[in-house]
Amino acid sequence: MNILIIGGGGVVGQKLAKKLLERGQLDGKPIDKLTLADISDPAPVEGAETTTCDISDAASVAKAITPETDVIYLLAAIVSAHAEEDFDAGYRINLMGTWNVLERARELGTCPKLVFTSSIAVFGGEAPDPLGDWSVLNPQGSYGTQKAMGELLINDFSRKGFVDGRGFRLPTITVRPGKPNRAASSFMSSIIREPLNGQEAICPVGEDFLHYYLSPRKCVENLIKGAEIPAEDLGQNRCMLMPGRTWAIKDLVAALENVAGPEPVKLIKWESQPDIEAIVKGWRWDMHADKALKLGLEADASFEDNVRAYLEDDKPAA
Amino acid sequence: MNILIIGGGGVVGQKLAKKLLERGQLDGKPIDKLTLADISDPAPVEGAETTTCDISDAASVAKAITPETDVIYLLAAIVSAHAEEDFDAGYRINLMGTWNVLERARELGTCPKLVFTSSIAVFGGEAPDPLGDWSVLNPQGSYGTQKAMGELLINDFSRKGFVDGRGFRLPTITVRPGKPNRAASSFMSSIIREPLNGQEAICPVGEDFLHYYLSPRKCVENLIKGAEIPAEDLGQNRCMLMPGRTWAIKDLVAALENVAGPEPVKLIKWESQPDIEAIVKGWRWDMHADKALKLGLEADASFEDNVRAYLEDDKPAA
Ligand SMILES: NC(=O)c1ccc[n+]([C@@H]2O[C@H](COP(=O)([O-])OP(=O)(O)OC[C@H]3O[C@@H](n4cnc5c(N)ncnc54)[C@H](O)[C@@H]3O)[C@@H](O)[C@H]2O)c1
Ligand SMILES: NC(=O)c1ccc[n+]([C@@H]2O[C@H](COP(=O)([O-])OP(=O)(O)OC[C@H]3O[C@@H](n4cnc5c(N)ncnc54)[C@H](O)[C@@H]3O)[C@@H](O)[C@H]2O)c1
Repeated sequence: MNILIIGGGGVVGQKLAKKLLERGQLDGKPIDKLTLADISDPAPVEGAETTTCDISDAASVAKAITPETDVIYLLAAIVSAHAEEDFDAGYRINLMGTWNVLERARELGTCPKLVFTSSIAVFGGEAPDPLGDWSVLNPQGSYGTQKAMGELLINDFSRKGFVDGRGFRLPTITVRPGKPNRAASSFMSSIIREPLNGQEAICPVGEDFLHYYLSPRKCVENLIKGAEIPAEDLGQNRCMLMPGRTWAIKDLVAALENVAGPEPVKLIKWESQPDIEAIVKGWRWDMHADKALKLGLEADASFEDNVRAYLEDDKPAA
Repeated sequence: MNILIIGGGGVVGQKLAKKLLERGQLDGKPIDKLTLADISDPAPVEGAETTTCDISDAASVAKAITPETDVIYLLAAIVSAHAEEDFDAGYRINLMGTWNVLERARELGTCPKLVFTSSIAVFGGEAPDPLGDWSVLNPQGSYGTQKAMGELLINDFSRKGFVDGRGFRLPTITVRPGKPNRAASSFMSSIIREPLNGQEAICPVGEDFLHYYLSPRKCVENLIKGAEIPAEDLGQNRCMLMPGRTWAIKDLVAALENVAGPEPVKLIKWESQPDIEAIVKGWRWDMHADKALKLGLEADASFEDNVRAYLEDDKPAA
């Protein structure tokens, strides 16, 4: 098994590499080689090779994907706020980058397995709740548009036998390790992560705000299972929701208190931020990943599990 | 009003040009100039200019779309069987051609109105009936994939204010004038058109076969109304089903007899063709264009109307 993780320097890619190497096999076959590719050299992971690859450059993609590549994880993307600000970069990387990877596979003729990370941002607009595998693709931003177009390409290239593709619409990944970023969803990790590290964090929305979450740990497990689903079980749409769970902010806060005691929650400062609220109140939360659940993918059992996973996997040593 | 019809040499484009010039105005504004553009010089229409434009070539698109262009009808496409056979041409013309048109509009900064012809081929797979404006985009061919991707682009470029786009998923257009073509749906026009012209036609499916139809006449009227819908009435998805109506083959045959008497129907030869049946039996027919109907677009009242429209608009003089 020769596995390539493109976008392997990112949060999900790094964790996926570690988990795959820990397992030592995928789909019952030993992993002989695992390569992390990213636009700049990814942080090293023991047992993995690293390389640079810019998916927006077809020649660079051709170097990274070889006739020996059995499985490609395509995680490389610029995130929503970035794609919204830089229209050209969004289409060049998120759309044409995906195109370049698919075209390279087609050129090779080896039909590699391809796991694509889409996003719940493909949903939006006036589409009625609940949202599920049969809901209209109606993104309300460039990032979601590019992800939806990627899904359509994955399906068409798979139908033609150029790749064995499968795509999963990731919920918001929480608790995300590291520093806050400029994403409007950044607070959804900060209000757990910072207090656990003894720092203050601002919650810009009310405690009843609902959202659809998944821990990085479960996300990685699902991406591994996702590669192992037999192609014939995927049916006529190879892209589906990845299971998550809908919680209110107060559920997150209660879970933090249940796991870490009464002190951390006191570090959450409740300060309404109308600009953040304006963005996130349009986001959808009534989502149901029926197909993926049936295929064996899983959400976290409780938000306590998300908090514990952060403490076990990511919390920096004091 | 300066109107450009790209794909203006095609069946719909020619009829649309005639209808627009007959009306003399669009959205209450007089039509000063109407240009038909196509890959080779389109058949002349009195009162219209003609030009050549290859949408897969950005420079050619830049010549056709100028700062003076107020409304663009983007009808140019290669059809389903062609896009399925020639994978590269399908993406080059149907996807990148649409991209080139949108990018040219963005470059100009004039926010022209853009009417895009999508197709019911964006639907398919295991999505449950009925199909409507909230159904998943799940095309089962390259043509439908490219149309679905075009819809997503139309929405994103419109949201950004680069165009004022609107897209309509055309039902199968029947009775199509001219000769049979290689499309699997060709018989759906042939079994009406050929008998009306005193010729035999083969019906390769049984009389209970259901499908979703619209006459060219209503299609053109809808494309005109479609351009006139105020942008604010389009909501958060600018692409929708164009109204059609679902009929069985026996309804078509009865309508032919009602309009043209007992003789023409005798020219229909019922010969099962398993290859055609295999393709068309996968097509969907339980479709509902609620949004477009609410916005004032219309289907034919009866299939008799389709037959009469062909006789009035298209039947070659004996
Ligand atoms: N984390 C989430 O909440 C979430 C939610 C939905 C979808 N996703 C998707 O999951 C995937 C992984 O997410 P993540 O949280 O690890 O993101 P991340 O930003 O941490 O990692 C993405 C990686 O892609 C790389 N990249 C960007 N442009 C590239 C290019 N041109 N060529 C090669 N690499 C490039 C970046 O350098 C980065 O290392 C992404 O596709 C993301 O869109 C994530
Ligand atoms: N007729 C139907 O049943 C139906 C159903 C669904 C959707 N549509 C769509 O409606 C539109 C019009 O349909 P039609 O029946 O008039 O099709 P048509 O084939 O008669 O016309 C399409 C025109 O596009 C032109 N064209 C092809 N490639 C081009 C290029 N690279 N640059 C410029 N022009 C190019 C062709 O020369 C042709 O004149 C098409 O987009 C079609 O996909 C039609």
